[in-house]
Amino acid sequence: MTATHPAPARSGTSADTAAEAARTALDRLFDPRSVAVIGASSDPGKRGYQAVRALRRSGFRYPVYPVNPRGGELLGLPVLSSVAQLPPGVDVALVALPGRAVPSVLRELAAVGVGGAVVLANGFRETGPAGAALEAELADAIAGTGMRVVGPNTSGILNAATGANLVGVPQAPAGPVSVLTQSGNMLLSLLADDRAIGGPGFHTYVGLGNQVDIGYHECLTHLAGSRGTGSIAVHAEGLSDGRAFLVAAAEATRTCPVVLLRGGRSEAGRRSALSHTGSIAGSDAVAGAVLSQAGVELVERSDELAMLAGVLATTAPVPAGTGVAVLSDGGGQATLAADALARSGVELATLGEHTRTALRAVLGPPASVANPVDVAGATDSDPALFTTAAELLFRDPSVGAVLLVGLFGGYHLRFDAALKDIEDATAGDLGALAARHRLPLLVQSCYTAERPASHDVLRAAGVPVLSSIDHAVRAVAALHRRGQRLATAGRRSSLRLPIARVGGTAHVLDEPTARLLVEAAGLGTGRWSLARSPRQAVAAVRAAGVPCALKVVSPRVVHKSEVGGVRLGVTAATAADDWAAIRDSVRSAMPGAEITGMIVTPMAPTGVELLVGATVDPTFGPVIAFGTGGVLVDALADVAFRAAPFTRLEATEMIEETVAARMLDGYRHLPAVDRDALAEFLVRVGEFVANTAHLTELDLNPVLANGSTILPLDVRAVVNRDG
Amino acid sequence: MTATHPAPARSGTSADTAAEAARTALDRLFDPRSVAVIGASSDPGKRGYQAVRALRRSGFRYPVYPVNPRGGELLGLPVLSSVAQLPPGVDVALVALPGRAVPSVLRELAAVGVGGAVVLANGFRETGPAGAALEAELADAIAGTGMRVVGPNTSGILNAATGANLVGVPQAPAGPVSVLTQSGNMLLSLLADDRAIGGPGFHTYVGLGNQVDIGYHECLTHLAGSRGTGSIAVHAEGLSDGRAFLVAAAEATRTCPVVLLRGGRSEAGRRSALSHTGSIAGSDAVAGAVLSQAGVELVERSDELAMLAGVLATTAPVPAGTGVAVLSDGGGQATLAADALARSGVELATLGEHTRTALRAVLGPPASVANPVDVAGATDSDPALFTTAAELLFRDPSVGAVLLVGLFGGYHLRFDAALKDIEDATAGDLGALAARHRLPLLVQSCYTAERPASHDVLRAAGVPVLSSIDHAVRAVAALHRRGQRLATAGRRSSLRLPIARVGGTAHVLDEPTARLLVEAAGLGTGRWSLARSPRQAVAAVRAAGVPCALKVVSPRVVHKSEVGGVRLGVTAATAADDWAAIRDSVRSAMPGAEITGMIVTPMAPTGVELLVGATVDPTFGPVIAFGTGGVLVDALADVAFRAAPFTRLEATEMIEETVAARMLDGYRHLPAVDRDALAEFLVRVGEFVANTAHLTELDLNPVLANGSTILPLDVRAVVNRDG
Repeated sequence: MTATHPAPARSGTSADTAAEAARTALDRLFDPRSVAVIGASSDPGKRGYQAVRALRRSGFRYPVYPVNPRGGELLGLPVLSSVAQLPPGVDVALVALPGRAVPSVLRELAAVGVGGAVVLANGFRETGPAGAALEAELADAIAGTGMRVVGPNTSGILNAATGANLVGVPQAPAGPVSVLTQSGNMLLSLLADDRAIGGPGFHTYVGLGNQVDIGYHECLTHLAGSRGTGSIAVHAEGLSDGRAFLVAAAEATRTCPVVLLRGGRSEAGRRSALSHTGSIAGSDAVAGAVLSQAGVELVERSDELAMLAGVLATTAPVPAGTGVAVLSDGGGQATLAADALARSGVELATLGEHTRTALRAVLGPPASVANPVDVAGATDSDPALFTTAAELLFRDPSVGAVLLVGLFGGYHLRFDAALKDIEDATAGDLGALAARHRLPLLVQSCYTAERPASHDVLRAAGVPVLSSIDHAVRAVAALHRRGQRLATAGRRSSLRLPIARVGGTAHVLDEPTARLLVEAAGLGTGRWSLARSPRQAVAAVRAAGVPCALKVVSPRVVHKSEVGGVRLGVTAATAADDWAAIRDSVRSAMPGAEITGMIVTPMAPTGVELLVGATVDPTFGPVIAFGTGGVLVDALADVAFRAAPFTRLEATEMIEETVAARMLDGYRHLPAVDRDALAEFLVRVGEFVANTAHLTELDLNPVLANGSTILPLDVRAVVNRDG
Repeated sequence: MTATHPAPARSGTSADTAAEAARTALDRLFDPRSVAVIGASSDPGKRGYQAVRALRRSGFRYPVYPVNPRGGELLGLPVLSSVAQLPPGVDVALVALPGRAVPSVLRELAAVGVGGAVVLANGFRETGPAGAALEAELADAIAGTGMRVVGPNTSGILNAATGANLVGVPQAPAGPVSVLTQSGNMLLSLLADDRAIGGPGFHTYVGLGNQVDIGYHECLTHLAGSRGTGSIAVHAEGLSDGRAFLVAAAEATRTCPVVLLRGGRSEAGRRSALSHTGSIAGSDAVAGAVLSQAGVELVERSDELAMLAGVLATTAPVPAGTGVAVLSDGGGQATLAADALARSGVELATLGEHTRTALRAVLGPPASVANPVDVAGATDSDPALFTTAAELLFRDPSVGAVLLVGLFGGYHLRFDAALKDIEDATAGDLGALAARHRLPLLVQSCYTAERPASHDVLRAAGVPVLSSIDHAVRAVAALHRRGQRLATAGRRSSLRLPIARVGGTAHVLDEPTARLLVEAAGLGTGRWSLARSPRQAVAAVRAAGVPCALKVVSPRVVHKSEVGGVRLGVTAATAADDWAAIRDSVRSAMPGAEITGMIVTPMAPTGVELLVGATVDPTFGPVIAFGTGGVLVDALADVAFRAAPFTRLEATEMIEETVAARMLDGYRHLPAVDRDALAEFLVRVGEFVANTAHLTELDLNPVLANGSTILPLDVRAVVNRDG
């Protein structure tokens, strides 16, 4: 047998050539039409052997070029002895060489027009300074060449549709789920989970590795726009550019579901911060909030990543304004499903009278025809009744999804072998029914382990079949959330890449300066004046015409109340004494503290005490915090976050996430608060923080809210300055 | 072939006879040595046929007596034509007859000394008044006979150890998990889940049905004391006597883990209640709290019930004061396991310097030897290194459990087929290691679906092997909680069956009466007096010698502040005017409201505002609520519950569950609170409520706490009275 390269599968017409020319660098990387393996090896224990074998076994129909200085032949292919021998314009080179050899070979690859390289070697940044230097050298090698790199320290990439298997695992089943991760074991785990739920299989897998060139956000945008990807499952331990990921995700999730499992969350909360906002937050809470804001479906459990990505890729979302109907053959499981839906915040549909009457006629007297519907034995001898019942449910306008729980697929095992044909036919009917209504149908069954044919029929029709009620309900909740999001009018993110933040040393501004900074952005802080002397204070109080608050201004004093730096109910008559009292108290608590002056403000009206804050998250950039303010701020930790800038809709959603929201409608003796005014205030704070490049922290606490008055009573800002 | 009864397997010595005589009614029911099937049938579609078949197929070695008026023969057994023909003293009769026939047949069964009956028929209480009447008739039939009944409307009972299979499913694998449930499908689901995790199998299953006689609590006590039961998995939609269950569980969990999945939780929250405590609570929160108090491991997800019961039955608890070590062959999964442990509130062990040095020597430079330990490839060619590493971890005194995550069992599939023998041997070594240290080892593997032999070896040694990191961590958390509980000094429940509560009509006591009731129980409410006139009010304020609060006393006024019924800072000079102001305000808000007088109390000192309340839960009896008090009580819903009476330890645990606990150490300007004094106060409230049979609600809100002063500022009590 003569070793030959397999002929390219394409016919080479001019239309194909044009299409080929339009392919981007990432198209070439993730859907290659030719692959070189640099460091090909005849040792079956080496990646350079396994890679070539995997490409052959996975049915990759395009040319494969093994390269090794020794030449010869490998698995029926001629081995080229140098990169220079490669034909021009190979799409991808898998580099299976030790780290040290990588920079120079990348230069050679770029020189022969290779589109992209996948660098497996480890020993780079993750190992310390020497590795970091090598990684910098690698980056230098490709700078300006136009060649793109995945890795180093990656498990590889995979296109299951074409068999471009550049990762050292058996071929993944082809399907709609694309995967981004930094962990090779994660791919094995996803493969196992996908198998456990009977599909739907994978499209593109990218092991990101050290992301010297290509990062998560770029892959996300590319895959969301790629033809075969129905959803993207992401596992990330850290996003090198979180803001770019947010912007990419906000756009990608408009058309493609993105499911994300974060690793390293328990460590992420360790960083400390100066302000309350930071200390309450921990970046895990921030990350969760801003990723949700971008439409990402967050996964708490690693065993749900493959399942959720699979369901979201194959199943219609639950339309906004509809509920879920549970259809069951056992009361116990119907109740558990209803409980789990309630915990997930998903409404059970309230069935119409007509639906209930029709169900009663079909299912007979023992059935429960309110939602959850319990057929109570009616299907034991005729599983086809599930189709009739599901049809009635789908016709009810309150129903946006049907969750069938119990024994379906096992009737022929549990009751009578003769039921098998009926079950298989019913599966087909159920699938067609869901497709006709364009609504999700999900099936939970105790018999998935037996892998009955009816389950395969359902899955082929886009109906997920799961063994766990909890997984099924988790999936319904994700489909529900996606339906809500797709339906929200005005759902268009304001997220953008932030202006570059100014570095330097953090300075806490004194309150008058902080107030002026905030006011310059159009955010009122009410009437106030700075008194430089007792005499000015008396005059200011007299001018105010009402009792005032007097607050010390001193560069050393951060928490004014704690050093006796605040007096309330100050009148013109008492102002001089109050000034002296504050001065003495502050000097006693902080000897030598310079007192620049005192702020005079009219006593605040009653109102709800809120917190509005901002930080610049190291991963995600400017973030606004909102929640319950006042003295309870630390104990309650009632705070919601959004990446700034954000829309009015997003501000409203942020408000509603908090306990504070429950106090906005005239709670007890408190005045009602105009939610629109509050949302508008938050939007303006968001724009201010996003646009103020030297601002690093902002605390408005408390912000007093009463009707449409949204009034910061205390303003604290930290900015970066040189020196 | 002649139909004969199989000979009893026992040899019939006198020792056996004595043992037989000592068997209780429940011993006879759940571990029968003879079974009668009433309503035996030759129709394979009928339970009366299936039951006899199931007993034969499941290897039940004791006599089986089919009974049917038609006589004849069934599956090789002679069919008796009446109950009267049964030999005396049959242990269990399975009654497979229609509901109507049940009461009279139960009388016949009792007459021939049958120990217990399992009544399958439905059509009783669950169907309405006619069914309830039939159920009462059933209860009458057994009253005073000594014969015990499971059901009606039950799926049956099962003893997997002896093959006493009185439930219509294939034989369950024999093992240590006993099951109590009301849903037949739940058993199918548990069988599937047990199979999915590779065991450990079942001991006794009881379908409780309508609980006309035997309820959950009696079964719990019986099974916890039975030889073969290692844990009890409970699924319940409602506990007919929740207090009895609590008392039984508090005792049972001292020796036998109890795992509980509740159904119907989302509906349970619907009941409304008069007081704040009730409205905040919803009985689901109460149920969760008091069941945990009794040591029950609560399951949120139905897919975790079988898994948790299996692990708790076979695996040692994590000793209190130790942490968990994660041992992994992939950084991604190690991180996810650490995250999940942190979320579960389980500590990662801090490894000693010696351990880390030793691990480094074994695993080499690339490994991460802090916890989580990542072998980073060291085991790829030698999985036996896991034993060496686990041994080092188990020897570290900070380590109370080892969680191995990754690919174990799949090394011979992933890397080299030659590794199979090493993996199998390593599994044996790991099992022996855990047994020697008497510490839990759990394994998570991506290869469970391949069912490698090494996993069976591990399981046989009591090492759970699970496919999901989340399940493994959930199991570790349960073992950790069990270890904590078993180690707590003074962990002896005060729970007892409550004194019978007094019925009648609910009356809200006026505040002076409520204060006297509470004070009579030794719970001080501070200085206060009741003024009947403005003159008495002035005198009372003067006697107090400090500014006072004045509060209206009126049978119609429940929320005093809302009708202007409270004035603060009242002095002797203002008391008469304040009286008038309150009177006018109350009359204006509630025309015709009778004003009995006004309570005079010295103005309260500063302090932390707490809530202490009590309700009589319809399921669980007297329950105490504790949390943040004052005006935020509704918005925060910060409340913990305990069934009363309870111990000082339980009171302390209740306090620590709340947000309020964060405010007890001198939070901001608030004084520090003596936690012991507060716990003692709660214990006394608990005793008071448990012992006061006519009390149905108590609200002490706010309770002001400052140092060791625990002072209710407002006392509201509801009692039952005739008329």
